[in-house]
Amino acid sequence: MNPLAIGKLVVVGTGLLGGSLGLAIRRSGCCRQIVGVGRNVTTLDKARAAGCIDEGTTDLAAAVSGADLIVLATPVGAIVPYLEKLAPLVEPGTIITDVGSTKAHIVAAAEAVLPHPGRFVGSHPMAGSECQGPEHADAQLFRDRPVIVTATNRTDAQAAAAIESLWQMLGMRLVRMSPDQHDRLVARISHLPHLAAALLVQLASRDGGLEVASTGFASTTRIAAGDPQLWADIFLDNRDGVLDALGEFEQLAADFRRILTTGDRAALLALLGEAQRRRTTWGGSQTGID
Amino acid sequence: MNPLAIGKLVVVGTGLLGGSLGLAIRRSGCCRQIVGVGRNVTTLDKARAAGCIDEGTTDLAAAVSGADLIVLATPVGAIVPYLEKLAPLVEPGTIITDVGSTKAHIVAAAEAVLPHPGRFVGSHPMAGSECQGPEHADAQLFRDRPVIVTATNRTDAQAAAAIESLWQMLGMRLVRMSPDQHDRLVARISHLPHLAAALLVQLASRDGGLEVASTGFASTTRIAAGDPQLWADIFLDNRDGVLDALGEFEQLAADFRRILTTGDRAALLALLGEAQRRRTTWGGSQTGID
Repeated sequence: MNPLAIGKLVVVGTGLLGGSLGLAIRRSGCCRQIVGVGRNVTTLDKARAAGCIDEGTTDLAAAVSGADLIVLATPVGAIVPYLEKLAPLVEPGTIITDVGSTKAHIVAAAEAVLPHPGRFVGSHPMAGSECQGPEHADAQLFRDRPVIVTATNRTDAQAAAAIESLWQMLGMRLVRMSPDQHDRLVARISHLPHLAAALLVQLASRDGGLEVASTGFASTTRIAAGDPQLWADIFLDNRDGVLDALGEFEQLAADFRRILTTGDRAALLALLGEAQRRRTTWGGSQTGID
Repeated sequence: MNPLAIGKLVVVGTGLLGGSLGLAIRRSGCCRQIVGVGRNVTTLDKARAAGCIDEGTTDLAAAVSGADLIVLATPVGAIVPYLEKLAPLVEPGTIITDVGSTKAHIVAAAEAVLPHPGRFVGSHPMAGSECQGPEHADAQLFRDRPVIVTATNRTDAQAAAAIESLWQMLGMRLVRMSPDQHDRLVARISHLPHLAAALLVQLASRDGGLEVASTGFASTTRIAAGDPQLWADIFLDNRDGVLDALGEFEQLAADFRRILTTGDRAALLALLGEAQRRRTTWGGSQTGID
């Protein structure tokens, strides 16, 4: 498969991510046919109406017949069950990827159950929104965002190259790492921030705190509005990564507690100054995030 | 003083908050004369050029002579030193307020050093921005935001009413509480979120995490770009409140750790679902924040 000339693309799960992916690829003109697969006919109809897919079906077997590429764009909790359903159906030439927010568990399952493990390439496009559903699909959702691709020593080089080209065609910035490394890193930059936002909301709800919360709080806790089912699956799937990241955070908090308790203004300034410098430098190097 | 007919207003500190206050009051037409006070002539010139004040001076004594109202709008660390400078200068009829992010220490200092303690009314308008300086002054900065006013049993009722009317005239939503209650609550909704953002940036900086961080991380850590000097003073000034809030957060984190370790999906869903519900409901009840 040349990602710039895909014959048949199957998108399993046509919500915000799958819908945006279909929309972007469809507009690029590099794909002859995009078939959406899901359990919910209404969602498939919406995805077709929004121009995300050419046709939708609940029949996975029919959809994947003759497919060049299958993208699993369901919530994390549904990816492994879909891999199991795909195993007896998938053809030797078909490349499979996913967009799940965890990778170790998913990649291990794919390599265990699929008949051609080398044709599976784990992906995690770091793009999203609190909005859900194909009616919010955005062909620009992926542009200038990072994508992590987690090929292993079992992955076909050609399959990995095809998936990498696909994401790059959508304007994403490619970062390669192992599934374990992904889970450790993403626990720190995504899963732990989500947890912190949720706990801050809980704490602020005491004694009428939310009545006086303002713009800073709004920003810090925005992601706590994300889907609880989706995030429960992510936390459970990346349990070790999340617990490790939480432990690291607690250690930093203990350091801060010591500094504040002793009133060490110089150390406090160093801590806050370094965070400010890193955040400001980072913000400036990104496009359209801040 | 009728806040809707102020003769002479003195704004000490003409940065973003003081500048925005001056701009809003000046545009309202309710004030005859607004004098900005600061140590930096350049900042005062910028404030005048931006229409925030009628005139600027570095001479505190001349400025406060005949003042109806003095607003201390400096960073938290400079408020108590200014109260000490004001003590021998302030006239009996002058009402004083501040906009500091901490209240217990400031209000106690004001009531200890000022010759007419009842004329001091602590305020905390919950409005701000990462932008600094009077060139970013915004007359709408206060609109629809909460303001906490912390009158005590020593405060003149007339002075408290005047300060409350002033903030309400700027479109703020009034919330009354004691200085101690303020510090406890604001530690949870503002100081702790700032700490969390700073620690999340520190953690994400390890092993190239920032390379793959995206929009969710950007939102959660936006406030970590705030001024380290300012925030060091806030943390030191509200040390007990911040340490208590951190302890409460650590307790919630310990609860989460137990839930995730045991893989209790129902408890995890309850935790994340409650945070989502509270955050979504809160967001919907605010104007223009989300």
